[in-house]
Amino acid sequence: MFPLIDQIPDLKTLSDARHPLHALLMEIALEEARAAYAEDEVPVGAVIVSWEKGVIARAHNQREQLQDPTAHAEMLAITQAASALQSWRLEGCALYVTLEPCPMCAGAIVQARLPLVVFGAFDSKAGACQSLYSIPQDPRLNHRAMVVGGVREAECQELLRDFFRQRRRSSRTEPEQKLS
Amino acid sequence: MFPLIDQIPDLKTLSDARHPLHALLMEIALEEARAAYAEDEVPVGAVIVSWEKGVIARAHNQREQLQDPTAHAEMLAITQAASALQSWRLEGCALYVTLEPCPMCAGAIVQARLPLVVFGAFDSKAGACQSLYSIPQDPRLNHRAMVVGGVREAECQELLRDFFRQRRRSSRTEPEQKLS
Repeated sequence: MFPLIDQIPDLKTLSDARHPLHALLMEIALEEARAAYAEDEVPVGAVIVSWEKGVIARAHNQREQLQDPTAHAEMLAITQAASALQSWRLEGCALYVTLEPCPMCAGAIVQARLPLVVFGAFDSKAGACQSLYSIPQDPRLNHRAMVVGGVREAECQELLRDFFRQRRRSSRTEPEQKLS
Repeated sequence: MFPLIDQIPDLKTLSDARHPLHALLMEIALEEARAAYAEDEVPVGAVIVSWEKGVIARAHNQREQLQDPTAHAEMLAITQAASALQSWRLEGCALYVTLEPCPMCAGAIVQARLPLVVFGAFDSKAGACQSLYSIPQDPRLNHRAMVVGGVREAECQELLRDFFRQRRRSSRTEPEQKLS
């Protein structure tokens, strides 16, 4: 369990990607991403912190193990956090995730009323918090989250690159293995 | 369990909202929506049919009961269907849902590689299959689904309207109850 934050941080100061809390909490998300890597899952990790209660959820991508297309790190963390708070409204919380959320996860952020999302690597192919869509920032939806991208970007991205590099390598030695 | 379909229908003929299979399968989704209503949940129901195996999942919105922001009918049905097929790829399947999917659920449709989505009522406030976004049809994402809207639209919509009408009525008699 991450120690409690001394005081609830000002949401405005958190809009700065260089806020020291961001690097600290992203480290836990990175630990989760490394755990995914070790389990041969696409390495994405997520953490949810409640400013009052500390870290209430941490999860990593488990799509292959669970054979569940919804088992992205963010989705598992959101369900875990709601269970911890016994409420579907994750007010006073922030989600940290190593990769920019996809449309599913960005939609779940809106559903959960999360006020803040901090992500590491940008996802030019499916990112829905800036790259392809800006779902949590959409004024037409009934909730908006502040989004901060690029925190520990290089480490988050390198983990993903390395994973796919390894997979391509092992697919060349085992050509029968299906990759996608 | 819905009886097996005699033969796998042609995806092209299913693009017609008047295809008789649509009305039939939407009836099961409507049953689920009525079950949600009876449990005081926003009445949305979903069904997933595999053209080879028949109905493999049926679920309704359980956000309040589970206190889980991700517990929309579609999400529960997708996880159920993947479990039934022991695969996160819902190929050869179709999702029927009484309300146009939101961004989260539309994103999950893409993640699950569902080839066909049929919905009842349009959702002008949060719909992500035509109204606000067209996520399953986005050529930039790594999967596209065919989307058919407006099947048994009036019944699907009326159930929702009636639910919110009742809620407003009971909130007038019990003013302390929080609605949203």
